[in-house]
Amino acid sequence: MAEIQETSVTSARQKHIVRPSQEMASLGKDDMPVLTKAEGIYVYAEDGRRLIDGPAGMWCTQIGYGRKEAVDAIAHQASTISFASPWYMSTSPSARLAEKIASLTPGDLNRIFFTTGGSTAVDSALRFTEFYNNVLGRPAKKRIISRIDGYHGSTGLAASVTGRKGSWANFDIETDRVSFLSSPNPRHAGSRTEAEFLDDLVKEFEDRIEALGADTVAAFIAEPLLANAGVIIPPKGYHARFKAVCEKHDILYISDEVVTAFGRCGEWFASEKVFDVTPDIITFAKGVTSGYVPLGGFAISDAVIARISGENANGSWFNNGFTYSNQPVSCAAAIANIDLMEREGIVDHARATAGYFRKALESLLDLPGAGAVHSAGLVGCVQCLLDPSQPDGTEEDRAFAARVDEICFDLGLIVRPIAERCVISPPLVITRAQIDDVVGILRKAITQAGEEAGLNAPAGAAAG
Amino acid sequence: MAEIQETSVTSARQKHIVRPSQEMASLGKDDMPVLTKAEGIYVYAEDGRRLIDGPAGMWCTQIGYGRKEAVDAIAHQASTISFASPWYMSTSPSARLAEKIASLTPGDLNRIFFTTGGSTAVDSALRFTEFYNNVLGRPAKKRIISRIDGYHGSTGLAASVTGRKGSWANFDIETDRVSFLSSPNPRHAGSRTEAEFLDDLVKEFEDRIEALGADTVAAFIAEPLLANAGVIIPPKGYHARFKAVCEKHDILYISDEVVTAFGRCGEWFASEKVFDVTPDIITFAKGVTSGYVPLGGFAISDAVIARISGENANGSWFNNGFTYSNQPVSCAAAIANIDLMEREGIVDHARATAGYFRKALESLLDLPGAGAVHSAGLVGCVQCLLDPSQPDGTEEDRAFAARVDEICFDLGLIVRPIAERCVISPPLVITRAQIDDVVGILRKAITQAGEEAGLNAPAGAAAG
Repeated sequence: MAEIQETSVTSARQKHIVRPSQEMASLGKDDMPVLTKAEGIYVYAEDGRRLIDGPAGMWCTQIGYGRKEAVDAIAHQASTISFASPWYMSTSPSARLAEKIASLTPGDLNRIFFTTGGSTAVDSALRFTEFYNNVLGRPAKKRIISRIDGYHGSTGLAASVTGRKGSWANFDIETDRVSFLSSPNPRHAGSRTEAEFLDDLVKEFEDRIEALGADTVAAFIAEPLLANAGVIIPPKGYHARFKAVCEKHDILYISDEVVTAFGRCGEWFASEKVFDVTPDIITFAKGVTSGYVPLGGFAISDAVIARISGENANGSWFNNGFTYSNQPVSCAAAIANIDLMEREGIVDHARATAGYFRKALESLLDLPGAGAVHSAGLVGCVQCLLDPSQPDGTEEDRAFAARVDEICFDLGLIVRPIAERCVISPPLVITRAQIDDVVGILRKAITQAGEEAGLNAPAGAAAG
Repeated sequence: MAEIQETSVTSARQKHIVRPSQEMASLGKDDMPVLTKAEGIYVYAEDGRRLIDGPAGMWCTQIGYGRKEAVDAIAHQASTISFASPWYMSTSPSARLAEKIASLTPGDLNRIFFTTGGSTAVDSALRFTEFYNNVLGRPAKKRIISRIDGYHGSTGLAASVTGRKGSWANFDIETDRVSFLSSPNPRHAGSRTEAEFLDDLVKEFEDRIEALGADTVAAFIAEPLLANAGVIIPPKGYHARFKAVCEKHDILYISDEVVTAFGRCGEWFASEKVFDVTPDIITFAKGVTSGYVPLGGFAISDAVIARISGENANGSWFNNGFTYSNQPVSCAAAIANIDLMEREGIVDHARATAGYFRKALESLLDLPGAGAVHSAGLVGCVQCLLDPSQPDGTEEDRAFAARVDEICFDLGLIVRPIAERCVISPPLVITRAQIDDVVGILRKAITQAGEEAGLNAPAGAAAG
């Protein structure tokens, strides 16, 4: 019990909140901007400053902020029926949303389980694979194969399949059940061609399955592109090759589309249409509600479900679920969000604008320090590399990118780089003129930060 | 991809949803009521029928349905700023909500971490205990002690500390890290007095710690009352005794108040004021937003935080968090919910009405088949026991309770029993007259179901 005093938002936060990825030494003292309103692609800070929301919140605000249609749908549902226990009651929004999502998924992924976000989507999907193999009488088939650089969330289980070592410090990861493959980062190909690099990645996967024993491997989990590691796009053909290996060994392929679905890559789901793979399970969250209220979930293939339901159920119950599974207000928000995206052609817009977005980012490559560009749809990054011949950033590159971010913030753009990668994943409603604004600010910031780092010469010279 | 056809809500649900605790044999065929609107303590089914919401959704709709103040706050926040990344931005609602919650918690539990519901609250709290002991340099101090009959949620980690064996079937529970004590169900005391029963429970806890080694035990997790097992209320003094044992061995006491907080037991938090224990960590969810939108979290004691922050941080970062940590719309809904509860004195009302509620339930004990009543605040149950001398229900009792539920539903009351326990945990705004309605329906249903089961004689005779 703490008495409430007259304080600012910042001091209330400092005194009372532990935030995600909290640095414990600065707890209670760390500074963060306070945002007070938002509209379209812009957010506004306490001091009135307007900022372009480069990361779209957290890769999620597809339709932009302040959209009346979404707000009205949320308010309508909250006033009509705000809750119903998903254990023993149903309401229209979850049923209609599931039906709608099933019309957008690839293949026969027509069966939906709803959760409260991406982490619970992954956690429940992994629990589903446990359940699936137990019902099939294969209790040993439980291992999950994941990748270094993959990010899958922050419950105990989701964190255990996350291949970002930085996030493991001071936590206990279930490493005996999870096996990590190399990052499919094409910049790690070295002297190999992309095709040779891909062959090696596939061979590593096959060898790993053989070493572990296929009868101990339940699933392979992969983001179509590795977003949280800074937009790493695997070699062309990667996903289809990995899916073929999975099929050979009766291993479920889980595509984690928490970031990539709902238009981010120019399609409702990226797996099939962008990355040429039809998974067994797809997890989603973020863009499904454009972040207005929490929702996540996963879609399962009818073929997978058929193996453990009806006559094949073996007396089983999928005893997994949340108070907020099928939450009516969250599901109504998602329906309104998808409706709005359809009515305004926002996914088509993202697809049509992707080339412009990429070219705009690539226009920065004449700058010393702008080492490489990676993008798919409306998610992309500029790697800030003092030495562009290097595949990954150094400590100095990360400081350089952080400085670029600082300057961008002062010029009205939120970037928040991932290591040395300045990622831009804007609200999907961004216009070409607004993309020009983003890239114009990035140009100024990279130029100034480069000058401060002594990078006056062209990239070639700096690399020499 | 499934084409959308003209279908009912039920057929869309059957075709496309996996629901919590889904029976797999009946997937696609199971029937559930469809709710279309709600107001106050009432929900309305598709066919127009009005039902009293006995379980308050899922122990959560404290303020009742359709409350304009909550709807307006949600809509206002969604239109003002619907999202901000909790990693690098702050907004007013989460800071103000954390400040408010800290003013309501017992002791020095003033530091809040927000999640998306009860399961993620427990999952993150357990991950916090991992983190805590790793930062303190005690990597072996990791085991969690929980109880049979305890329920703590449905992520992999939360399910692992849940002591309900029914929920374990076909899942893999981390049993090597979790150790379960006996249920503190006073009906299991047998010939022992309540005090003797409590002594035995405490001794079991002490013996278990000794057997495991105190230096391997991180935390004890307990609901103040075991809600999900059907309102089991431990012997008086239980929590304080257990807390003393925890303190002796530097074991964190986690009080899982997902059900009991926010007025359910007549206090904002039940731990200290109802159950006489000041925990180190309290998890909450459900009532914090009255279920209007997903939100959960946990409060941590300043003393615990002090051991691993500031000078004691040891370079650590709490690398745990969700896209929807600190979600502005969810937090604004919680603020409006708490404001409304304060303005209307809803917690005081719950406390003042608790005695009336209990007496009303106890008035049923003259019926054969109404075996026992358990309650605290506005959560209670009637045990449906064909033989009231038995502590727990049999298969027949569960069928009897299910029949009571069926009749109640026809008469306009949702019950949904937990095994043989007909639990009532209504919206906290319920009036005395409405309690009379609930109990009147229960009386008719128990009478009729009892007659159907051949229980015409008084309970004593039936037990003979």
